[in-house]
Amino acid sequence: MSQNSGKKKNIETLPPKENFSEWYHEVIHRAEIMDVRYPIKGLYVWFPFGFKIRQLVYGKLRELLDKEHDEVYFPALIPETELGKEGKHIKGFEDEVYWVTHGGLDELDVKLALRPTSETAMYPMFKLWIRSHTDMPLRVYQIVNTFRYETKHTRPLIRLREITSFKEAHTAHRNFEEAEEQVKDAVKLYKEFYDFLAIPYMVIRRPEWDKFPGAVYTIAFDTIMPDGRTLQIGTVHHLGNNFAKTFDIKYETPDGDHEYVHQTCYGISERCVAALISVHGDDNGLILPFEVSPVQFVIIPVLYKGKEEEVMEVAEKVFNKLKGLGYRTVLDSGDERPGAKYYKWELKGATIRIEIGPKEVEKGEIVVSFRDERKKFSMSMDELTDEKIKAWAKEIKSRIRARAFAGMKEKVRYFDNLDELRGWIRTGVAIVHFCMSEECAEVIEKDVSAGILGKFEEAGEWCDKDITGKCIVCGREGYLSAISRSY
Amino acid sequence: MSQNSGKKKNIETLPPKENFSEWYHEVIHRAEIMDVRYPIKGLYVWFPFGFKIRQLVYGKLRELLDKEHDEVYFPALIPETELGKEGKHIKGFEDEVYWVTHGGLDELDVKLALRPTSETAMYPMFKLWIRSHTDMPLRVYQIVNTFRYETKHTRPLIRLREITSFKEAHTAHRNFEEAEEQVKDAVKLYKEFYDFLAIPYMVIRRPEWDKFPGAVYTIAFDTIMPDGRTLQIGTVHHLGNNFAKTFDIKYETPDGDHEYVHQTCYGISERCVAALISVHGDDNGLILPFEVSPVQFVIIPVLYKGKEEEVMEVAEKVFNKLKGLGYRTVLDSGDERPGAKYYKWELKGATIRIEIGPKEVEKGEIVVSFRDERKKFSMSMDELTDEKIKAWAKEIKSRIRARAFAGMKEKVRYFDNLDELRGWIRTGVAIVHFCMSEECAEVIEKDVSAGILGKFEEAGEWCDKDITGKCIVCGREGYLSAISRSY
Repeated sequence: MSQNSGKKKNIETLPPKENFSEWYHEVIHRAEIMDVRYPIKGLYVWFPFGFKIRQLVYGKLRELLDKEHDEVYFPALIPETELGKEGKHIKGFEDEVYWVTHGGLDELDVKLALRPTSETAMYPMFKLWIRSHTDMPLRVYQIVNTFRYETKHTRPLIRLREITSFKEAHTAHRNFEEAEEQVKDAVKLYKEFYDFLAIPYMVIRRPEWDKFPGAVYTIAFDTIMPDGRTLQIGTVHHLGNNFAKTFDIKYETPDGDHEYVHQTCYGISERCVAALISVHGDDNGLILPFEVSPVQFVIIPVLYKGKEEEVMEVAEKVFNKLKGLGYRTVLDSGDERPGAKYYKWELKGATIRIEIGPKEVEKGEIVVSFRDERKKFSMSMDELTDEKIKAWAKEIKSRIRARAFAGMKEKVRYFDNLDELRGWIRTGVAIVHFCMSEECAEVIEKDVSAGILGKFEEAGEWCDKDITGKCIVCGREGYLSAISRSY
Repeated sequence: MSQNSGKKKNIETLPPKENFSEWYHEVIHRAEIMDVRYPIKGLYVWFPFGFKIRQLVYGKLRELLDKEHDEVYFPALIPETELGKEGKHIKGFEDEVYWVTHGGLDELDVKLALRPTSETAMYPMFKLWIRSHTDMPLRVYQIVNTFRYETKHTRPLIRLREITSFKEAHTAHRNFEEAEEQVKDAVKLYKEFYDFLAIPYMVIRRPEWDKFPGAVYTIAFDTIMPDGRTLQIGTVHHLGNNFAKTFDIKYETPDGDHEYVHQTCYGISERCVAALISVHGDDNGLILPFEVSPVQFVIIPVLYKGKEEEVMEVAEKVFNKLKGLGYRTVLDSGDERPGAKYYKWELKGATIRIEIGPKEVEKGEIVVSFRDERKKFSMSMDELTDEKIKAWAKEIKSRIRARAFAGMKEKVRYFDNLDELRGWIRTGVAIVHFCMSEECAEVIEKDVSAGILGKFEEAGEWCDKDITGKCIVCGREGYLSAISRSY
């Protein structure tokens, strides 16, 4: 397919990123991440280019998980009888489940839910898989499509009716404490994943009323979008033995007793790609860490009449060298003017651009520029070594992480009174001391039109206040917590 | 998870492979390919071990496709209005489509089909993607779950209600001939894929009444299962401009005219894994080509009292060497007797077994046996080089391919009269000359309870008769064709 499906629009400039909602909508389409024109609300098509980003990002996630998890696949259809077994769980999902009621022209005897998440598909099988204490820890994951009948405003990669790329891990353990260790390991794994993507995050324990339906507690990763709203980009749940009791998942202890297992589950969806695009991009389009950029190098030959051949020859030599080293490289020898090419590849976040013209050929040089910096420098062609490239990749990562963190830090502020907070909350995240009561949360909700994200697991990077202090609403003992408008 | 979920059964022997149906059912579960105990008929769970095979097999398929195709993802839900647009297509699928009618407690305005295949999800978008002759060839593929409301007897990997791993490629071209070239390329690609898996196949053009709903013609890959029934393991369809007319997919020619595109599509499902298991396996379990075996090497230390340490030390050295070379290797140092270990790893098709006991340690040797041969030989540990291993992999492939082909060849016979054919057809495939008329097909169906698979595209390997000859039923001009009972 043409990589130019949006080409009529490519010559127009993007809206500035400060108009974030409009920028996001346009960049998703013009950089060919997703096609938003599918004829059902809330369903989108991954373009080839977007799908490559997806594969690179999820490749890393798989690599991290594969160390201690086994990949599996459970069915997408869950019988109503299983989905309904855990009372709190079904209550949490009943408004947003898609129901399959007919096969061909027949009405089904038992309605089938399109999985909104897979606890109730997996745990009846876990009951069969787990016999003895030696079967644990059991750690599996799958990357699958899940479905939510969203009635709110939908948005590509962020709020979807088909989540195409839900990575859900599920584990079982001998007791509460071992499951808690797993929660910590999962948090660590997610940190490593988001550090790899250079995406800053807050690790926040959700309040009781906002935890996963059926969980003992939920720890979430939230990042801050350019418009100051928070985006939940990962969750880790301690399920205790709640589901084990419902699905009768027991194991035999070394003493011959039979005990319920304790479980955890944790998920990341394509919101990780939404965050990647939103946090790093600029007015000119995508900026991507070198490791997950579908185009790590773009080579643009600058052709003058009579010099075409020698320039192309050198450009191809550089192209072959980079390909040979295993880098994703494009040699753009098309007819467009160099300026149009720069524009196009900046939009798609090509990480490193190399220009080669007659002057460079003569001197044995290349002109290099990094997408995140947009300033050019010349260097000898011979200096373009694998070692140098690896060093560049690190520098790029650390620059874009620093930039992302600085931008986000500006959107986080501590408050100890509601009046000031009220003026701030449309700008970013408010950190406060909060008692975690539902009454005080309602006050916040009504008074400042924002929600309690929860209390910080670690606030260090974001705030230097004491972890405990007086609740901003009622003055009782409270914890360092975050308040935000969220996606 | 325990790799031993079926362990209670592991000590029993498998049914002999000549009782194929029973063997298949047992090996799928005991070798931990799929768990068949999911609470809905026709839906199965991929165990970790089975999923590894899937990933290795589909990894090869991706590698082959990525040379000329872009991977994409289209939604799983298709509005009834789109699915119904192409008259023949919907007729072919209407009895087996799952319908989503409710979201939460709301009835949906437009019913949504769970994709049985994705023509009608993709082609409305192709209309938007294709503008000019320069946009072609357009070649995309996706690997997705698709759904069929099967009323026939279901069977893991073979006949499913959720096909978990449907690889579907879709292409668009400027004219009929260019689409036909793509059909040939797709056939070539599928040959390469099945040759890689050492699975013999027949390439057969389906009769008119059995082609893909909406296609101009269909070419299928069929393999022969151990019970003599054929299994369709891939199809390639020339769609002409049938769908282009329905979905109004036109392009601008260099002269400024607007023409309909011509399309192809081609698919492979997890039946490729079913064939892999069925064609190569034996009474002891799986036999897999080295390249797609989750356990390429299993090292079994033979421990005698007082010699444990030195044996384990050497076993670990060999393990580290093989891992270092990038091979999927297991060192089975568990408590079971060596015999139980041999049994377990034969069941799972571990390709090469290495035994190391005190005698071997003393001599600097290892005992090697190949899963497909089951005879042992000793060799010096130092001879276990990457070069040697690569040569072994080739030899294994060629041995199992030869064995599979010989076994299949025995199940294929040419007939020129129906009486003899009638006695044969429960044993295997009958090759005949056939006129391709529906009346004669009905005669075959009624008389011998078997179906016309279609006419050979290439019969060479399977039959040395002339490609044309007199129809076995009516005596008119016919083509070399295959008759079989099929899955």
